[in-house]
Amino acid sequence: MTDAMPGAVSGAETDGTRRHDAAVRGFASDNYSGVHPEVLAALAAANGGHQTSYGDDAYTEHLQEVFRAHFGDQAQAYPVFNGTGANVVSLQAMTTRWGAVVCTTTAHIHVDECGAPEKMGGLKLLPVRTPDGKLTPELVDVEARGFEDVHRAQPQVVSLTQTTELGTAYSVDELAALCEHAHSLGMRVHVDGARISNAAASLGVPLRAFTTDVGVDVLSFGGTKNGLLLGEVVVVLDPAAAPGVDYVRKSSMQLASKMRFVSAQLDALLGTDLWLRSATHANAMAQRLSAAVRDIDGVHVQRPVQANAVFAVLPKDVTARLQKRFKFYTWDESTGEVRWMTTFDTTEQDVDAFAAAIREEMRGEPAGG
Amino acid sequence: MTDAMPGAVSGAETDGTRRHDAAVRGFASDNYSGVHPEVLAALAAANGGHQTSYGDDAYTEHLQEVFRAHFGDQAQAYPVFNGTGANVVSLQAMTTRWGAVVCTTTAHIHVDECGAPEKMGGLKLLPVRTPDGKLTPELVDVEARGFEDVHRAQPQVVSLTQTTELGTAYSVDELAALCEHAHSLGMRVHVDGARISNAAASLGVPLRAFTTDVGVDVLSFGGTKNGLLLGEVVVVLDPAAAPGVDYVRKSSMQLASKMRFVSAQLDALLGTDLWLRSATHANAMAQRLSAAVRDIDGVHVQRPVQANAVFAVLPKDVTARLQKRFKFYTWDESTGEVRWMTTFDTTEQDVDAFAAAIREEMRGEPAGG
Amino acid sequence: MTDAMPGAVSGAETDGTRRHDAAVRGFASDNYSGVHPEVLAALAAANGGHQTSYGDDAYTEHLQEVFRAHFGDQAQAYPVFNGTGANVVSLQAMTTRWGAVVCTTTAHIHVDECGAPEKMGGLKLLPVRTPDGKLTPELVDVEARGFEDVHRAQPQVVSLTQTTELGTAYSVDELAALCEHAHSLGMRVHVDGARISNAAASLGVPLRAFTTDVGVDVLSFGGTKNGLLLGEVVVVLDPAAAPGVDYVRKSSMQLASKMRFVSAQLDALLGTDLWLRSATHANAMAQRLSAAVRDIDGVHVQRPVQANAVFAVLPKDVTARLQKRFKFYTWDESTGEVRWMTTFDTTEQDVDAFAAAIREEMRGEPAGG
Amino acid sequence: MTDAMPGAVSGAETDGTRRHDAAVRGFASDNYSGVHPEVLAALAAANGGHQTSYGDDAYTEHLQEVFRAHFGDQAQAYPVFNGTGANVVSLQAMTTRWGAVVCTTTAHIHVDECGAPEKMGGLKLLPVRTPDGKLTPELVDVEARGFEDVHRAQPQVVSLTQTTELGTAYSVDELAALCEHAHSLGMRVHVDGARISNAAASLGVPLRAFTTDVGVDVLSFGGTKNGLLLGEVVVVLDPAAAPGVDYVRKSSMQLASKMRFVSAQLDALLGTDLWLRSATHANAMAQRLSAAVRDIDGVHVQRPVQANAVFAVLPKDVTARLQKRFKFYTWDESTGEVRWMTTFDTTEQDVDAFAAAIREEMRGEPAGG
Repeated sequence: MTDAMPGAVSGAETDGTRRHDAAVRGFASDNYSGVHPEVLAALAAANGGHQTSYGDDAYTEHLQEVFRAHFGDQAQAYPVFNGTGANVVSLQAMTTRWGAVVCTTTAHIHVDECGAPEKMGGLKLLPVRTPDGKLTPELVDVEARGFEDVHRAQPQVVSLTQTTELGTAYSVDELAALCEHAHSLGMRVHVDGARISNAAASLGVPLRAFTTDVGVDVLSFGGTKNGLLLGEVVVVLDPAAAPGVDYVRKSSMQLASKMRFVSAQLDALLGTDLWLRSATHANAMAQRLSAAVRDIDGVHVQRPVQANAVFAVLPKDVTARLQKRFKFYTWDESTGEVRWMTTFDTTEQDVDAFAAAIREEMRGEPAGG
Repeated sequence: MTDAMPGAVSGAETDGTRRHDAAVRGFASDNYSGVHPEVLAALAAANGGHQTSYGDDAYTEHLQEVFRAHFGDQAQAYPVFNGTGANVVSLQAMTTRWGAVVCTTTAHIHVDECGAPEKMGGLKLLPVRTPDGKLTPELVDVEARGFEDVHRAQPQVVSLTQTTELGTAYSVDELAALCEHAHSLGMRVHVDGARISNAAASLGVPLRAFTTDVGVDVLSFGGTKNGLLLGEVVVVLDPAAAPGVDYVRKSSMQLASKMRFVSAQLDALLGTDLWLRSATHANAMAQRLSAAVRDIDGVHVQRPVQANAVFAVLPKDVTARLQKRFKFYTWDESTGEVRWMTTFDTTEQDVDAFAAAIREEMRGEPAGG
Repeated sequence: MTDAMPGAVSGAETDGTRRHDAAVRGFASDNYSGVHPEVLAALAAANGGHQTSYGDDAYTEHLQEVFRAHFGDQAQAYPVFNGTGANVVSLQAMTTRWGAVVCTTTAHIHVDECGAPEKMGGLKLLPVRTPDGKLTPELVDVEARGFEDVHRAQPQVVSLTQTTELGTAYSVDELAALCEHAHSLGMRVHVDGARISNAAASLGVPLRAFTTDVGVDVLSFGGTKNGLLLGEVVVVLDPAAAPGVDYVRKSSMQLASKMRFVSAQLDALLGTDLWLRSATHANAMAQRLSAAVRDIDGVHVQRPVQANAVFAVLPKDVTARLQKRFKFYTWDESTGEVRWMTTFDTTEQDVDAFAAAIREEMRGEPAGG
Repeated sequence: MTDAMPGAVSGAETDGTRRHDAAVRGFASDNYSGVHPEVLAALAAANGGHQTSYGDDAYTEHLQEVFRAHFGDQAQAYPVFNGTGANVVSLQAMTTRWGAVVCTTTAHIHVDECGAPEKMGGLKLLPVRTPDGKLTPELVDVEARGFEDVHRAQPQVVSLTQTTELGTAYSVDELAALCEHAHSLGMRVHVDGARISNAAASLGVPLRAFTTDVGVDVLSFGGTKNGLLLGEVVVVLDPAAAPGVDYVRKSSMQLASKMRFVSAQLDALLGTDLWLRSATHANAMAQRLSAAVRDIDGVHVQRPVQANAVFAVLPKDVTARLQKRFKFYTWDESTGEVRWMTTFDTTEQDVDAFAAAIREEMRGEPAGG
């Protein structure tokens, strides 16, 4: 920024008003965290001067190389604003007007997007119940039927979430089997990868090993939950799977004008090892938390801890007291199951303090006692 | 950010990769500019620690006060990602399923949003030709008819743009007359205010003087073109005009998870005089440019310069040569009309250099000669 | 028709080409039947001369009285073309843009309308599994939750089918309980009444006893399956439940221009006792068929026979041989369950011949042996 | 219908209640007329027995031959309920999610369908002003631009109306030029043929001469206005132009269950010369009316009378008095222009009586004086 910049108030440009306590972190959601400092630095570096808007800038151009390095030479990256946007753009681009999407009853697209797939895309969802948030070829078949029957919206896409909304991760083999099955039915595979970096960290393999290489067609790559201010990407792995995705992104109100700032963040994440460092850390914090509470009487960890979520059942009064000290959500009111999320900025001290608080509250000790 | 922050690489956090020349600015669009340093500082200040996602954070809460201060006690501010999003959320919230929207044939919602109003909201647009991008009560009546006729999508909203896509500004009286007329027909008024700060600077009155006070019902407040990284706001001035806007924002994929970072930018803009400083500067640069080229033979400034745009007709070969030196768009291929936009970071030197280049190219002198 | 009618070819006007065997009837669907002769006579009576189009005719006007007589003084009848149209118009009129509809996983709107609710209305369906195609207050609660959560499309309507897609009928008390529960949640109740006349015949009560009087808000009244050429009606029982239904009907492509001919058919059906005569007969034929096959070894009638459908499991090879003699559908390929529908024109001889054929094929006797 | 038919009341089956005066005809709309007796006879002939629903019946099968005879071997006929349905199904099948449709500002799809194209199909219409309701290649170019610009909904279809809403007819050459131009742009051509039989009668050529043979891709063939109870057809002339049209018809609520009765009517119309007889008659009645009023002082026939509509300007008080005697519509309140439609059942006596009435009222004579 030069001296000639109008409106620049000397001194003020490094200030700004903080309205919250930056030392307080909880276990409610990876969305509650802020921006990784390396990402913030990338924003500053991308600032100044003029760059062509709507994606024809140096940062978005470079981002294509970054995504090809991770996902293979055919990969095309279309940055968007948020996860619902990435999903609904992907699914629209992958379907005709008469298409339907097989997903789980716990899928974000089914339960957490206020009907955006239906209302914005006219998409028919065909939700299938699962024991663990994961589809299998057999579960897909529950709804992948009625092909060529005009009374049935035609199943065209299998959409799965990796890692799932229940904190579980599909293995490479599970995904390969799903993709092979979907393709054998003439269907395409979409992955809601809001937490796909956590999956890579969990599986210990490169991103492409469980996406491009097993046959995934289109991926919603998640950046926001992994330390970006905002930024997700529709990653088209097979260009034939998503014709017109650039028009769909625009008509779906997901085309950023100053896209360089979305792309620069994504470059900071994926052009370095930051994506993996942050996800590995978040996963480790979930393991630490899980380990710390497993031996507490009355606390029952419910599911495999394979990413950055821990699901546990504990007494409702304990939950109520704990929530006065740390933010987290009750997942199922009827069973008392709660969800604890860790993130890139969760510290060991945070986990230990939380585990100690759980222990205290389970003993009925006075808070902080 | 504390020392305990995992993943923080000492030193790296102030770095980042610059992939462009930050000293180059053009006249293509206010979207080509970057982020005002005060806004970037606000992002940094809002970082660290956890804040509740999806708008239940301290920054978004405070933002309500900021908007009430500008727009009156009834104003409700719903931050969204981009201008198309602000418009389509607003118009959906203002209409029933059978509604239609009267606008101009040059309106952004009609010509620049890839059909988002129709495709996402099912909105019927009723475009009216205008001489200068501005509606009048008489022009509204061209399409505001057929009330209670089931064969006609019912005109429910008048949508106008301030400042217009043609660089013109409605006066306070013009807007008052439009609102009165629309209301007399039982219609609501929406303002696409992507450049509303430029209008305030041009009119020399507070924002509410030509919105709330004249009867505008819902405003798309634009931040991106005036120095934000991104950030627009659906401002509901009459709550009865936009029931369910919070659901519509979510289902329209415009609800930011880490909303504090959108709100903090908007606070930096509107909680200080930055919005007006930047817009006043941009407008002044347009005046400077207009003044500098008006006396050049063969350059014809086409419209009143009332904001941060200058429209001019010049020979096509001159345009072609100029565009190799400075970025700007041809507005109308048939007439050779071009559009030059100024912005918060346009400098006097930028304008003078551009005007000199125009003069050179009009004389047929070698570039830089 | 007067002698002056142009184009009338003497003699030819009473002819027409029959391309099928009018003596052949099967058990595939009540949609396979034709038009009741009283209905055909009504069409002829409504012909000749001019009548205002789009519903402003003497037949549609009179139809309002007919529906008020059946459904109470508040009832408003909006004739439409088909059942999917009636459902999708009803549900659109009953919901805002952010609404969702609780239904069963076997509901016609979910499985047989090619996604019309989602694709035309942007409606989010929330399907619930049921043992018998019937919702209960407890089953409604499985999905009627998340009120005021912007991430969840808001449950605004409970849609149930009477009689159900599985041939079962809700009792008056069951419907009263459902309506009371839905209303206590601020939701409305829609009934897909494609076979509502069969329900009245089964329950032995007037139509209003299990619609208006128990609190149903909007009804898709079915005429086509009960002897009309075509014709269904969106019956608004509580006008506050479906604002703008007339616009929605038009924008949903369900407004007949020569509506007199739809209304005249409906008048022939409901202005006399034809609706009940036909439905009672169809139900009786289902009872006769059920009774005739219950004692056949290897034939298992699956569900209560409460209307005009019989569901039975029989060996697949038997089904295959039977289907060469009589048309009917396999309902569930995996279990071998078949569906037999009776209709207004099913004769006792039809039933007896079919039962005899089943008996023969179960014995492995040669067809017709 | 056999004696065994349950519910048949002897004698009643030829009755029915007439609620209107079948001798009264007006000039309001061809939609006001009834059903041609040959069509009614075809309905009766198609009745009785069972036929597979949803189009897999003998009548719909035969109809394919009928349409191939008229439109060529590639033609596929998809019967639907009404004109808006035919148009919106056609246009959806012809476009991708990001498509737009160039039409006239007077097009039925733009002004008379309550926004169905936008609301049901998400279609962006690009209306162009015309002097006479007819597009030309030059007028198409007004909106057929911005190809490959993601900010612009992509122009994919030119939709024109034959005969137009203004009673004019495109010549064969005009249509050929339009199709060639559209195809050269990569666009498809849709014809709204609600009155296409009137066009054939006017042009004196076979239907295919100005559809298939000039390159029209998809046609909305109109039956209702030409003597059917109801019935229109999406005629796909180039199968590559409308993939998935069968699914779109179903999801658009336009798939008739008892389709045999729609197809039988269409067969009565097009399998004989009835379509042409009726249209020729209607056109002749318009000519007779036009000729009868042209010499009346103060009556100004406005446009070429090329089909079954006459547009005239006459004093508003005269119009008011005339409308008490004959039904017709004012087309333009501002100019006093009225529209008179003739139809298959308009008689010479009707025309002469109407012309006499116009003459009387223009003289200010007492009605019937």
